[in-house]
Amino acid sequence: MLTRIDHVGIACKSLDAAIERYEGIFGLKVVSRETNSEQGVREAMLVVSGEPSASYVQLLEPLGPDTPVGKFVAKRGEGIHHVGYAVESVTEALESIGAKGVRLIDTRPRHGSMGASIAFLHPGDLGGVLTELVQPAARA
Amino acid sequence: MLTRIDHVGIACKSLDAAIERYEGIFGLKVVSRETNSEQGVREAMLVVSGEPSASYVQLLEPLGPDTPVGKFVAKRGEGIHHVGYAVESVTEALESIGAKGVRLIDTRPRHGSMGASIAFLHPGDLGGVLTELVQPAARA
Repeated sequence: MLTRIDHVGIACKSLDAAIERYEGIFGLKVVSRETNSEQGVREAMLVVSGEPSASYVQLLEPLGPDTPVGKFVAKRGEGIHHVGYAVESVTEALESIGAKGVRLIDTRPRHGSMGASIAFLHPGDLGGVLTELVQPAARA
Repeated sequence: MLTRIDHVGIACKSLDAAIERYEGIFGLKVVSRETNSEQGVREAMLVVSGEPSASYVQLLEPLGPDTPVGKFVAKRGEGIHHVGYAVESVTEALESIGAKGVRLIDTRPRHGSMGASIAFLHPGDLGGVLTELVQPAARA
């Protein structure tokens, strides 16, 4: 069902400072920057490995203190926020995982980074790990 | 420098329960189980994607409350503990990263899972992210 680790989502106070850190220390490159107002974040994707097993560091700066990432940073500080796994189909994965009794934060796919369809699973049923399913956008 | 996300390290109270969760919900398979007394953990590696871009979920159960993972679980509960990136050479990566002023938890490589050489970088210089460098064991 899971085909690879798509990304590690990292909460930060300043997106620009975090990008500078990952570029400067590790030489990673930003391949996408966007604001997702639905999720309350400004974010950047930095590529760790390319196709066909693309994986990313996703840096997330909260748009405000009342957003999920804002609350995370206030409570726990900056750090790893979630892990995202690639799947062939988010819809099918949600059906299979939901049938096993795992609570779904998103019962239907929604828009994620770089045109992906994504859904979050509840950390309370996954050993405290906020887990995201990612169906990357179809390539042209 | 970083060639892929090697693994996500997840702290759990019960290794057996965590393995059952990842096998049952996501269909992942355990490829290695070991006890690392130096790091104070019992652990299992579950494969998410295979060669040549192998990546894993690493489940970590503390050997006691005074271990690093034991303290993490006591303070923050179960959840994502660190991220490990593959590198060609841990020694060379440590030299390069240390020269940029990042504090190194391990100044020399030590033994990690499945025969890898590993080293940890200090989260205080990396936006709260405990970061591991992983040089996988050479294949026969």
